[in-house]
Amino acid sequence: MDAVDLVSETAPYRDCKVPPTARPGTVESLFALSATDMTAVDALIRDRLQSPVALIPALADHLVAAGGKRLRPLLTVAAGRLCDTRGDGHLKLAAAVEFIHTATLLHDDVVDGSSLRRGKTAAHLIWGGASSVLVGDFLFARAFELMVETGVLRALEILARAARVIAEGEVLQLTRAHDVDLNQTTYLEIIRGKTAELFAAAAEAGAVVSGAPEPRVRALSDYGMKLGLAFQLTDDALDYGGASEVLGKNAGDDFREGKVTLPLLLAIERTRDTEQTFWERAIGRRDQTADDFIYARSLIIQSGALASTLDLAQRYADEAKGALRVFEISDWRTSLEALADFAVSRAA
Amino acid sequence: MDAVDLVSETAPYRDCKVPPTARPGTVESLFALSATDMTAVDALIRDRLQSPVALIPALADHLVAAGGKRLRPLLTVAAGRLCDTRGDGHLKLAAAVEFIHTATLLHDDVVDGSSLRRGKTAAHLIWGGASSVLVGDFLFARAFELMVETGVLRALEILARAARVIAEGEVLQLTRAHDVDLNQTTYLEIIRGKTAELFAAAAEAGAVVSGAPEPRVRALSDYGMKLGLAFQLTDDALDYGGASEVLGKNAGDDFREGKVTLPLLLAIERTRDTEQTFWERAIGRRDQTADDFIYARSLIIQSGALASTLDLAQRYADEAKGALRVFEISDWRTSLEALADFAVSRAA
Repeated sequence: MDAVDLVSETAPYRDCKVPPTARPGTVESLFALSATDMTAVDALIRDRLQSPVALIPALADHLVAAGGKRLRPLLTVAAGRLCDTRGDGHLKLAAAVEFIHTATLLHDDVVDGSSLRRGKTAAHLIWGGASSVLVGDFLFARAFELMVETGVLRALEILARAARVIAEGEVLQLTRAHDVDLNQTTYLEIIRGKTAELFAAAAEAGAVVSGAPEPRVRALSDYGMKLGLAFQLTDDALDYGGASEVLGKNAGDDFREGKVTLPLLLAIERTRDTEQTFWERAIGRRDQTADDFIYARSLIIQSGALASTLDLAQRYADEAKGALRVFEISDWRTSLEALADFAVSRAA
Repeated sequence: MDAVDLVSETAPYRDCKVPPTARPGTVESLFALSATDMTAVDALIRDRLQSPVALIPALADHLVAAGGKRLRPLLTVAAGRLCDTRGDGHLKLAAAVEFIHTATLLHDDVVDGSSLRRGKTAAHLIWGGASSVLVGDFLFARAFELMVETGVLRALEILARAARVIAEGEVLQLTRAHDVDLNQTTYLEIIRGKTAELFAAAAEAGAVVSGAPEPRVRALSDYGMKLGLAFQLTDDALDYGGASEVLGKNAGDDFREGKVTLPLLLAIERTRDTEQTFWERAIGRRDQTADDFIYARSLIIQSGALASTLDLAQRYADEAKGALRVFEISDWRTSLEALADFAVSRAA
């Protein structure tokens, strides 16, 4: 399960469901503070999706219209505001960040053969894999055109590097995803690449385009990285129901795909003596019966693997909040702290 | 048939088969003049293919080691030298251009389901389509990292735009490739996007990074665009044997794929009254017999479609040469003129 899907379950900005008087220091206040900027980002995204080749806006709009909370561009906007940004550079970079993210979603869905994205039929099932690959390439290129418009080379450097690390993380995941011998270090490397790196780059670029001094740039990069890890690990836990007795609607997706995430790999490590045959069959060979998920979930809970995953997510959320201490207390800072808490509290 | 395949039939630079004393004003002299720079570009390409994720250099090297004449980076190098470049910016942009080109080849082969590339088994048949998509993304990102290193924003702008136009051209081709009603205007738009735009951007970026004055930048962009069109139209003609009685080894590929290129679309237009049923079956429905290619080729020759295609290619080659008149006569200029003649003479 990817962070974006969960986040998209809450209301998008353009529905204006967020009260402008949201209580300070909450996720809602972050959305309220960002609403004007995010509306401008949305307009920019729609404008730059245009192309004389009609299939391109049609396919891209399918994904963009499906919404999602636009967490990554939100980080760029919030980082810019926290650093007293001037001009519209942070808006352009935010749109570029969303384009990079959407391009990777399009390519991932082709790579994974996924059938759903943001609650809608995946684009490659409607327009074909070829179109998804090429429209993804269009979005990558548009992202760089937007970045060039800001005239800030260092922002380009940060986001080009992030795009490269994302691709490396995806390839690493592709070669290791069904490996029952995957260890925690390699797993964290994978999610740093496929999720956290873009969170970090989104926040860092927002700081850089605002001319922030170096310690603040580093702090926001660190915040984004830790936030991304906390989000992804919490998503991983939610796929096994999190700390709740009730399973979410997408629970079990990772398991059924044979995708090794942290709760699973820790459970495999801790129960290898007695359950080796089960893991080899259900994950190694992806030869599963209907009851296997429930059994795997019980092993994940009993071995403490779920609790360890949530503990690690909480530690990253705490480190994310800690990184913001270089900033004076403000509504922006406290609402970004609240976002870190929100990342983890979803699994409570 | 793509320009790159034909060009790769001649010896690559690193074999040093080009005599350093090549006669001025020949394609060989262009290769000789560029040899030192192109060796440096080659080293840069190999260096930037590296990644801690082993599959990435393995897959990318499969394509890069297969050679090819590296015509696009050659344009960047030659444009830089023609504009008295200083430093190594033109080498970095040349490597970036080759990365963008290689990324599009990887994605195209997945999109088309091609089985061969540069005479070797296509990467997606060895490592899978998913790997080809993701390694293509890695190469795109690496290209932008290299461009950022030059510090020249305008070069980034030119190449980001080119990458976007290429994607648009590919999508347009995807939606129109088997359309028996394709007209010349739309076809030229497709090949401008999928081939000529990167030729133009490669040459333009080489001029820009060298600090050339505006008329020279425009001249090199124009040269690259016209050269790319001449190359692609000649390739299109070669797929039907060109002006020769003897068919090349890849002749008929476009036809068998049902791909509508200029010789074919002109022949369809000119023989529609009598051959509509044939074209609808062989191209529209791709329901072909073994004899269809020979019959189609006879229609293409008899209707004058092949001659019209070669005439147009020659006109573009002449315009490419004309664009270089803003430069003083030099070995670089005359050898670039020779390249334009070479583009078309391959089909003689």
